[in-house]
Amino acid sequence: MIDLNLMGQAARAASRQLAVLPTARKNAALLAIADVLEAQAATVLTANAKDIATGRAKGLSEALLDRLLLNEKRLAALADDTRRVTTLPDPVGAEFNSRVLPNGMRLCKRRIPIGVIGVIYEARPNVTIDIATLCLKTGNAAILRGGSETLHSNLALTAVIQEALATSGLPAAAVQTLTDPDRALVTGLLRLDQYVDVIIPRGGAALHRLCREQATIPVITGGMGICHIFVDESADLARAVDIVENAKVQRPSVCNALDTVLVHRAVAAAFLPTMAERLTRSKVELRATPDALAILQDAATPAMVVPAGPEDFDTEWMALILGVKIVDSLDEVIAHIQDHSTEHSDSILTNDWANAQRFVNEINSAAVFVNASTRFNDGGQFGLGAEVAVSTQKLHARGPMGLEELTTYKWIGIGDGHVRE
Amino acid sequence: MIDLNLMGQAARAASRQLAVLPTARKNAALLAIADVLEAQAATVLTANAKDIATGRAKGLSEALLDRLLLNEKRLAALADDTRRVTTLPDPVGAEFNSRVLPNGMRLCKRRIPIGVIGVIYEARPNVTIDIATLCLKTGNAAILRGGSETLHSNLALTAVIQEALATSGLPAAAVQTLTDPDRALVTGLLRLDQYVDVIIPRGGAALHRLCREQATIPVITGGMGICHIFVDESADLARAVDIVENAKVQRPSVCNALDTVLVHRAVAAAFLPTMAERLTRSKVELRATPDALAILQDAATPAMVVPAGPEDFDTEWMALILGVKIVDSLDEVIAHIQDHSTEHSDSILTNDWANAQRFVNEINSAAVFVNASTRFNDGGQFGLGAEVAVSTQKLHARGPMGLEELTTYKWIGIGDGHVRE
Repeated sequence: MIDLNLMGQAARAASRQLAVLPTARKNAALLAIADVLEAQAATVLTANAKDIATGRAKGLSEALLDRLLLNEKRLAALADDTRRVTTLPDPVGAEFNSRVLPNGMRLCKRRIPIGVIGVIYEARPNVTIDIATLCLKTGNAAILRGGSETLHSNLALTAVIQEALATSGLPAAAVQTLTDPDRALVTGLLRLDQYVDVIIPRGGAALHRLCREQATIPVITGGMGICHIFVDESADLARAVDIVENAKVQRPSVCNALDTVLVHRAVAAAFLPTMAERLTRSKVELRATPDALAILQDAATPAMVVPAGPEDFDTEWMALILGVKIVDSLDEVIAHIQDHSTEHSDSILTNDWANAQRFVNEINSAAVFVNASTRFNDGGQFGLGAEVAVSTQKLHARGPMGLEELTTYKWIGIGDGHVRE
Repeated sequence: MIDLNLMGQAARAASRQLAVLPTARKNAALLAIADVLEAQAATVLTANAKDIATGRAKGLSEALLDRLLLNEKRLAALADDTRRVTTLPDPVGAEFNSRVLPNGMRLCKRRIPIGVIGVIYEARPNVTIDIATLCLKTGNAAILRGGSETLHSNLALTAVIQEALATSGLPAAAVQTLTDPDRALVTGLLRLDQYVDVIIPRGGAALHRLCREQATIPVITGGMGICHIFVDESADLARAVDIVENAKVQRPSVCNALDTVLVHRAVAAAFLPTMAERLTRSKVELRATPDALAILQDAATPAMVVPAGPEDFDTEWMALILGVKIVDSLDEVIAHIQDHSTEHSDSILTNDWANAQRFVNEINSAAVFVNASTRFNDGGQFGLGAEVAVSTQKLHARGPMGLEELTTYKWIGIGDGHVRE
């Protein structure tokens, strides 16, 4: 029987200990996690095998089973990733915006941990270790709730983390996991505002809606992207094919993968058949507006192409499917993206200076690109080293959330008997 | 009949126009607001007189009526404040964290408006102008909901703003006010997540709870402070009396006013009678723990002192009342503040280096002071020029929210045919 209030209290108490730890102590705990992970590899893999067997019996797809799967190579990579986090700079404690006020008071902001972070995530066991290490590195306590399909793996990984915390002299409540499959616990976690400072949901639209509706705690939503590329009439069409292919095909199941390509009418006849030929090699299905459909069906190599349905430009595909629309102007592009975007990642391919400027100025997605693939909106690609989520909301953090985004700040005012006039 | 969805749509459309306005256009609109405010002063004052009459008939306290009141001097000050906002730097458009990635992509963050901001605020008509001008300056559209006691004033001020928007060529929906007193509109606004990016509630605990429970939009709560001052045994006691008096008496109805003074036992007998004598002059009632009570009752000039009740250290007084507690150690101080604070403003008065460091390190309130009054946690005092609220939450902004805190950022990646490996 899990008592969320007790977990919350313990997490809050642990967060106060973590907040004042020097970096060396936090890094030592991360190294301990990596070491225990390697030492307990057999136990973790046995637990993971149970999840895989259960998942297979339940008829999970091979793609999902692959996301669930741990093996020796993946565990080794996970241990390496954990060790790499120790090499990243610790953002906690840095002072910035320092100034002396006219009255002589010294004022600055100091970066501090957020406190207690609740993370609800998909059925990927490696995320348990990723989030735990990023939270620990930034002095935050974490309450984790992974997908039920990874129950045994997460129990084993929690044991790994707990052993490492114990050998490092850190409180066990620094990282707690909700392993009870009861769904009511998720709702309970979303309302634990007395103890939890932020909820980070990783998952699909239904989870985000649940969080919006139920949470009494600030939520950072993210990880849902309906991403666009606009191929302008001045685009280098050969490079445009490369970029569209990269954005759609390189890893179609992630949030920064391409969902809709918008093509200027002036280059549609030249671009679409070449694009379709390339994408057909990767078995991409095209969902096209009638005018695009006509061009694509007339092409020498007929592509896998069907008419776009009414929902097709509001769908995050997560699969080898691509919406295709012909547009007449940048106005139409901007209007389309503003109407259909989830404000994740959008890109313009162009050689027109004014159009590039206008796109960058008027599209306010978390990441806006010129002549580049949407796949770059990612903590590793942006040089942040690691990420806990990709935020698509406006407050606190947008785009990849690295270590710094897991912190907040306090103002420090140093006076000498200062009173307000 | 107010249609919130139509208001939201219009606000979203207006926000897109505002987002790309140059600073000069926004400043011109602010100057127009100031001009119209002066030109329409008689109309505004007539409307305000109705609110005052209604409030008096309803039996509102003189303090509340004073908050409601507009007069020529206050209107002139409001026009001046509005003109002053034009002199503040416009944070929108600034690029920061610029870098060139190893693959040659140029990457930066650019500051942009949040979008549409919903503000629910107390019965102070000047706030209508304050918030409208700060939102306009930062390119945000605003939906405002003021206290029902200021209905006529807000209608008149909204007319002022609308006239200024029209003469400046800006969309009327840039600033909309909910003047219908129907409370269901507040709940509706809190759930308008399709169009509103953030809700800023200014008000008491009940409003904050309503927002936490009902909002499906990110909320920045603030403006509630249970603030502490700790008088350490090494404090300069004469200055400590000045600071405690300033923090409690200078403006007792605001959120950064002092609520509890914690006094080290070693100096309690020396400090408390002097403090009580000074505070008694300002008619401050003391709610003291038994040991403090004993000292205070034995003093030469008996103060207005009563035993502290069980809720007294969890109450934001907003009045001339002060909790008084004697403590034995800094450990006890930190534990007390962590248990009772709303993480607004806390201060230590000390000459002990280690104690000052520990207090600053372990108290994670929005503002932490050494040898200074809690009253400094304020946008004007911190040199931000203006503030829309004082945040006590952890995400996005803590402490005074000035112009920069009304913005967010987007990532901009400039490639040259970049695809992800």
